[in-house]
Amino acid sequence: MLGQMMNLPLMISSLIQHADSFHGDAEIVSRLPEGGIHRYTYHDAHRRSRQLANALLSLNVKMGERIGTLAWNSHRHLEIYYGVSGMGAVCHTINPRLFPEQIAYIVNHAEDDYIFFDITFAALVESLAPHCPRVKGWVALCSHAHLPKCDNIANLLAYDDLVNAHSDDYQWPEFDENTASSLCYTSGTTGNPKGVLFSHRSTVLHAYGSALPDGLNLSARDAVLPAVPMFHVNAWGLPYSAAMAGAKLVMPGAQLDGASLYELFEAEQVTISAGVPTIWLSLLQHLQTNRLKLSTIKTLVIGGSAAPPAMIRAFDEDYGVTVNHAWGMTEMSPLGTANTFKRKHLSLPAAEKDKIRVKQGRPLYGVQMKIVDGAGKTLPNDGQAFGDLLVRGPWTISSYYKGEGGNPLIDGWFPTGDVATLDPDGYMQITDRSKDVIKSGGEWISSIDIENLAVAHPAVMEAAVIGVAHPKWDERPLLLVIRKKDMAVTREEMLEFMRDKIAKWWLPDDVVFVASLPHTATGKLLKTRLREDYRDYKLPTA
Amino acid sequence: MLGQMMNLPLMISSLIQHADSFHGDAEIVSRLPEGGIHRYTYHDAHRRSRQLANALLSLNVKMGERIGTLAWNSHRHLEIYYGVSGMGAVCHTINPRLFPEQIAYIVNHAEDDYIFFDITFAALVESLAPHCPRVKGWVALCSHAHLPKCDNIANLLAYDDLVNAHSDDYQWPEFDENTASSLCYTSGTTGNPKGVLFSHRSTVLHAYGSALPDGLNLSARDAVLPAVPMFHVNAWGLPYSAAMAGAKLVMPGAQLDGASLYELFEAEQVTISAGVPTIWLSLLQHLQTNRLKLSTIKTLVIGGSAAPPAMIRAFDEDYGVTVNHAWGMTEMSPLGTANTFKRKHLSLPAAEKDKIRVKQGRPLYGVQMKIVDGAGKTLPNDGQAFGDLLVRGPWTISSYYKGEGGNPLIDGWFPTGDVATLDPDGYMQITDRSKDVIKSGGEWISSIDIENLAVAHPAVMEAAVIGVAHPKWDERPLLLVIRKKDMAVTREEMLEFMRDKIAKWWLPDDVVFVASLPHTATGKLLKTRLREDYRDYKLPTA
Repeated sequence: MLGQMMNLPLMISSLIQHADSFHGDAEIVSRLPEGGIHRYTYHDAHRRSRQLANALLSLNVKMGERIGTLAWNSHRHLEIYYGVSGMGAVCHTINPRLFPEQIAYIVNHAEDDYIFFDITFAALVESLAPHCPRVKGWVALCSHAHLPKCDNIANLLAYDDLVNAHSDDYQWPEFDENTASSLCYTSGTTGNPKGVLFSHRSTVLHAYGSALPDGLNLSARDAVLPAVPMFHVNAWGLPYSAAMAGAKLVMPGAQLDGASLYELFEAEQVTISAGVPTIWLSLLQHLQTNRLKLSTIKTLVIGGSAAPPAMIRAFDEDYGVTVNHAWGMTEMSPLGTANTFKRKHLSLPAAEKDKIRVKQGRPLYGVQMKIVDGAGKTLPNDGQAFGDLLVRGPWTISSYYKGEGGNPLIDGWFPTGDVATLDPDGYMQITDRSKDVIKSGGEWISSIDIENLAVAHPAVMEAAVIGVAHPKWDERPLLLVIRKKDMAVTREEMLEFMRDKIAKWWLPDDVVFVASLPHTATGKLLKTRLREDYRDYKLPTA
Repeated sequence: MLGQMMNLPLMISSLIQHADSFHGDAEIVSRLPEGGIHRYTYHDAHRRSRQLANALLSLNVKMGERIGTLAWNSHRHLEIYYGVSGMGAVCHTINPRLFPEQIAYIVNHAEDDYIFFDITFAALVESLAPHCPRVKGWVALCSHAHLPKCDNIANLLAYDDLVNAHSDDYQWPEFDENTASSLCYTSGTTGNPKGVLFSHRSTVLHAYGSALPDGLNLSARDAVLPAVPMFHVNAWGLPYSAAMAGAKLVMPGAQLDGASLYELFEAEQVTISAGVPTIWLSLLQHLQTNRLKLSTIKTLVIGGSAAPPAMIRAFDEDYGVTVNHAWGMTEMSPLGTANTFKRKHLSLPAAEKDKIRVKQGRPLYGVQMKIVDGAGKTLPNDGQAFGDLLVRGPWTISSYYKGEGGNPLIDGWFPTGDVATLDPDGYMQITDRSKDVIKSGGEWISSIDIENLAVAHPAVMEAAVIGVAHPKWDERPLLLVIRKKDMAVTREEMLEFMRDKIAKWWLPDDVVFVASLPHTATGKLLKTRLREDYRDYKLPTA
């Protein structure tokens, strides 16, 4: 027997419709790539999104067709989010920081019909266009006056011309909520990028979950600055959740340095912002160097990689700002966890609270989570056992676009590729990447834990730990160290330094001093390369 | 083209599963009908819900079959919410305050297989049973020791016996999220009660929407006391949204007087509670009489009928408690609006804030809302125009159980039966019931506005305003007044008192002093009766 409630689909268009109807005068402020600040309202954004939908119809764009973007956070990019998905097409955000060959691969694989790009990427587009013959038109996100010179591009349009030429008389269609809405490629360290195809349903449910008080806690009293780009998993969904809440939106454009962010925070009275640790490190340095205070910011959401404990403490103690340590991935829309305290934690001493805050947080409702051992057996949520982190939920991927990589699921669960602990209160902590964990005698050793310990030595600039083959234990840890300039430390001193701070059997079997370590394009240690380089390394214990 | 996210249904069972997994030690505290306080955790509640699911299977309860409850708020009632809906049956909450004939009608119309009842309703059940021949068994919510004597009931069980006899080895099934989950009858002033049949999808979406910061703002830092009974539209969804948030739950049982609530608030450090204005009036009197303070409560949600401005102010100014003025109805699961401030309101002077707080609040995301005139034309959201309030959304009814009353929708919108204004910021204010509004010369006059004005006269105890036939204007307002004991006021004095406080054409055409006014079972003015009684009344202006 079915319930007798209205059978209405969850539509992305209903988010901007809601914001317009009930928060029509809430502001959207953008720092433009062509210079200056643009400000308008949700009412305006909704109107222009409808004009864009009519423009797309005039370009003969159909349901399900892909529209690419190469763009920073701005009001125009927001209009594309709503205009494209709202009319039933797929908003395909492309990371302009990837190598041009990867971008061309992605555009061609996605079969994008049009690419909307910021004028800062004009040169990139000129080099891309010859390799993307399927693209019917390139639309520069600017007014006619700012249209860049791109001689080799036949079908070049100025976004404002396109939008202004069309009426806002448009009614958002209602259709199956499982319809594809947006596409984002994730680039692993190996193989071609794979596409994650979100739906209207997954996007709206993710907005609900992430706006909750124990998610990002977004209300009509907030001004939100997404310091994570809209090409990084939809700026963690903030363009959707902010509209759901009717929060003011502040779009920083390309300037994500500490000084530029600080200026916007203060000028626009921002209350919450979200980004990766390097962004906040830059802000912290700017604050410290210039002896500044944050007058309106209450919460900084830190995700993408682990937030350093010292950073969490500095924002809290020196600036009165709460850090919300979050975790997720493209395949999860992206939010999986957020870190807020529970009732019973409120009265804990600061040191105890710190222990909670360094963890990646608790699962949002809508995310199921468990850790399993090598045999797939569920491990206890005791905060000690660590295993492969598996997730499941309506905003988690079931398969990649066009079926790339086959079925990624294990018994219906998505393996995140992270190794983590889960404590009895539901706080998850990443201890390693699955492929980087060292399997020694059937037990697992976290490479990250040892690296964190090694860099605590005053002479160490950077450290990497990998598993190297061992005849008795299968694998044993090898520590690679870059020494700080003009600093000395020996193999024995390194091991001695670590000896009483770590389980005996976690102590590396050897230390090698190196001049450099390989990194990925996004700055992470490229351990696949290290494992190759040291495949035949003979440990002294072997 | 469909998105490629996991196709997982929104299931009520996943709420208690989530609370158990990540908030297993959060408390659920209940004041029991048999006396004393019971305390356990979400982990326990989940375990007992699964035992109940096994017990229901042993009773041969099948998917879609209705299980009735006649019960106050308690941990056992919570287990029934999750156990019954979770295994696919329908949790049918019945209002024990209705007339016994209405209850019998409802039980038979719903075709309930079993009725779970609090022992305080043993006498009611004894009188009901002979009129409900279809019911296979009656389950008293108590231990074996407290089983009431009900001689005429053949199949009488003690709830704890039933649950304890079964294992907790039970895996919640996943099925179509549109499956019926719960049933609640709404009793109008005319005709038989009609059933509203909720689904798993509508319930989970309602929990998301209502837990948002601009809804009820529920987090893992809260202790929630639902002072609205679980037989009143699922206690406004709190048993679901509290589990979603991992909030402590405090169940007050039958004792909803100010003194009992105060005791629980303080003993259990409650942070948020929700109920109708009369409950909070009783609390306010208790606080004032005994010169008490509220030490942990931050928010009181007031709904069911309009919160008096003086009450909102008293809680705010004297007790530091924020009143969240909410509005909804059974047909909306029930929450439609909640009243929180926007960013731009935070710096307003108190008097300006008061004007916002007396309104019923802004629509939650998931509720579309508009006002229309008599011809169905949408009226402006200007805070002045008032019209029939229409709503639409995934937790709004599409039709009543078994199709009673035919299609209630107008072009896909549900007419709430309220007349309201909507201001440019989305705040809705009820001005009247649709059937009570007075249609004078094509324009509408709010009967409630005139009544509120009339009762402000020091000699008036109660007032009612109805439309009476008029040859020229169709209808004109007639004011009916009960004078306070030993107080005098004349027709002319009443009209004079109102003259400069109201639009000239809203002034009643006549005043009649009466000894009493008719009310419904829930204490509302029974205007249908008044309109009948005064159908042939001849106005002096006619």
